[in-house]
Amino acid sequence: MKRNTRFMNHSVPKGFRLAGVHCGVKSDPSREDLTLITTDSDAVAAGVYTQNVVHAASVKQNRAKTPFDRFRVVVVNSGNANACTGERGEQDAREMTRLAAKSVGATEDQALAMSTGIIGEYLPMDKLTAGITAAKAQLGTDSTAFDSAVRGITTTDKFVKVASRSIEMDGQSVQVTAMAKGAGMIGPNMATMLCVVMTDAALAPTTAQRILSTAVDESFNCMSVEGHMSTSDTVLLLASGGSGVQLAGPSADQQLQEALTAVCVELARMIPTDGEGASHLITIDVKGCATREDAHRIAKTVADSPLVKTGVAGADPNWGRIVSAAGYAGVQFDVSQLTLSINGTLVYENSMPVAFDDAVVSASIRDNHETRLELTLAEGDSSIRYWTSDLTIDYVRFNSEYTT
Amino acid sequence: MKRNTRFMNHSVPKGFRLAGVHCGVKSDPSREDLTLITTDSDAVAAGVYTQNVVHAASVKQNRAKTPFDRFRVVVVNSGNANACTGERGEQDAREMTRLAAKSVGATEDQALAMSTGIIGEYLPMDKLTAGITAAKAQLGTDSTAFDSAVRGITTTDKFVKVASRSIEMDGQSVQVTAMAKGAGMIGPNMATMLCVVMTDAALAPTTAQRILSTAVDESFNCMSVEGHMSTSDTVLLLASGGSGVQLAGPSADQQLQEALTAVCVELARMIPTDGEGASHLITIDVKGCATREDAHRIAKTVADSPLVKTGVAGADPNWGRIVSAAGYAGVQFDVSQLTLSINGTLVYENSMPVAFDDAVVSASIRDNHETRLELTLAEGDSSIRYWTSDLTIDYVRFNSEYTT
Repeated sequence: MKRNTRFMNHSVPKGFRLAGVHCGVKSDPSREDLTLITTDSDAVAAGVYTQNVVHAASVKQNRAKTPFDRFRVVVVNSGNANACTGERGEQDAREMTRLAAKSVGATEDQALAMSTGIIGEYLPMDKLTAGITAAKAQLGTDSTAFDSAVRGITTTDKFVKVASRSIEMDGQSVQVTAMAKGAGMIGPNMATMLCVVMTDAALAPTTAQRILSTAVDESFNCMSVEGHMSTSDTVLLLASGGSGVQLAGPSADQQLQEALTAVCVELARMIPTDGEGASHLITIDVKGCATREDAHRIAKTVADSPLVKTGVAGADPNWGRIVSAAGYAGVQFDVSQLTLSINGTLVYENSMPVAFDDAVVSASIRDNHETRLELTLAEGDSSIRYWTSDLTIDYVRFNSEYTT
Repeated sequence: MKRNTRFMNHSVPKGFRLAGVHCGVKSDPSREDLTLITTDSDAVAAGVYTQNVVHAASVKQNRAKTPFDRFRVVVVNSGNANACTGERGEQDAREMTRLAAKSVGATEDQALAMSTGIIGEYLPMDKLTAGITAAKAQLGTDSTAFDSAVRGITTTDKFVKVASRSIEMDGQSVQVTAMAKGAGMIGPNMATMLCVVMTDAALAPTTAQRILSTAVDESFNCMSVEGHMSTSDTVLLLASGGSGVQLAGPSADQQLQEALTAVCVELARMIPTDGEGASHLITIDVKGCATREDAHRIAKTVADSPLVKTGVAGADPNWGRIVSAAGYAGVQFDVSQLTLSINGTLVYENSMPVAFDDAVVSASIRDNHETRLELTLAEGDSSIRYWTSDLTIDYVRFNSEYTT
């Protein structure tokens, strides 16, 4: 089988139609706040959701449905997360789902819903009802429809987040196109990450769930902004089968897996890049661990350390903050073999500081958007790559200057 | 047995002599940077240490010695943590210990050492040698000696942290006096918390260790500034027996336990109060948990959330940030029974927002140094009280503006 994965224009995979409209959840009439994505016939949907026990009503409902093979439509509103809204919130989420289903001639069990925005407020159901009707009337497959749908899921995003891959399988083309939003503060309440991945491959629900979970494990689950898990984080994979390509065998699965993971990684890097006030994307490689879980714990602990994050913001090659953060991740390791490099410069080797030119490393942090930290242990062969943003004065300003 | 615990002047318990001097680890000659605390005869010492696998040489050596009953002296230097300094750092820590022991006519195994300050630099052993000799010459029991010793363990502390209790046992007085430092940024490298508790009660080593561990569990282990665990955190309990009071029986143990816990809690509250840039002390009560560990995880997760911390800095009664942080602590609980109050005002009850006057609650945060959050679950009877600081622009400024 020929491997031909390349960048494409972000075209809508076959079998999907979509639209984004403004219906009034956001106050600015120029901003879309409702997106509808529908398939021409029954499709497969898989999902990965926030692990927060305090989660939005729609998360609970979607989780109960996926993976399944009768998917027809998902509605997303931005500006109101419908989280922490109790029984009425659950009723509203069901009604929103029912309205979306009805708009495309499907049943409630064929529809999903997502909400992102301020928490603790009830959804304006009259506006959503009108919005779903309006979006239904504008469903399309062109770039105008696609762009409006992408904007309709955003909140405080400074740029839209889209990635795609096209793969050829036995002479036929399969498209994977995804949109994501977040994680910026919303409301100013919550940082939510939403992502919808569309593909026109034909997949079984269990296969869809497996490749989505794998892709998320290597992308969105290896990314944090401030380590505060949202009530609403959701990644959906929708497979329309519109390409006519039915995946057959491990090789085809692997090919789609690679494309899906690549798309998710590309989006996962965009989210901390767009973190509130962020001036750097920090990429953390942790290598030589006994297990991937150990590597993940170390990387996440380093990523969430305010001292590491402020150090990068200040272009300070402060290795002490990084190795000490690695040390309190709850992972036992041989400290005498711990090694760290910053932007490719070795700064700490086998538990001893290495002489290096502070000014050069500091300049490499200051002058580049991405800062690369590489921690190497000697416990095994497991590794991970993790992304986060730095912590700047602007972050604190954004998140503290609001007063009710 | 009469219970009579009250505030006292911070007198030095019987059987201790101490001093603080400037020996040149810190550049400012007006600031003490070395403290010596010695007992007149063999005493009991117990310790609780950082769980960071990346820890200072002295932590490793102290941990191997305590608890024991032949203690004679502890030397503390501030300005250099002797952490991440490899084999030479271990040799230096041993030499520092040996010099302190020799100065009071004891052996190395009777001495402990602590270091706090910048990491990754070698100790200036000539300066420490002279400093130990100078401190030995100034050992005393009066307030001048005590105050210099207290200052000698500080780094960027804006105020010294001292607490004491006097208890009466069978007509005799037992004194508990403690000093602590941190956690402010040092260097600007690391936030280290050090504490030395002195008592003139006579204790068995196992008893000393038990009551110290219990006190730390309810105080310093329930406190964070930014959640970054230091390489050097150490709490020592030194019991000279100088009061002539030998603890006998559970009631006496309990009386001393209460005094020790009270002293440690008093100091634990001072540390986030003195956090870099902190404008609020945040006290988090988590109640109704299945286990104390669950309550601890929830409290720590709320305490370490940058969104919660910036919200308090901005006097924002943002309950969504708080309940969502509770939700991702990794503890399963019935969300429908989650309740939160801020400064005594109910804002979220049984998973539903409660109408409250935002302006009043915001003012209660803005106008008071302490912000009290109370989260109530319905899983059991376990609870915890936890302290942290808020996250301000000044914190980020302090920790990012340094460039090498």
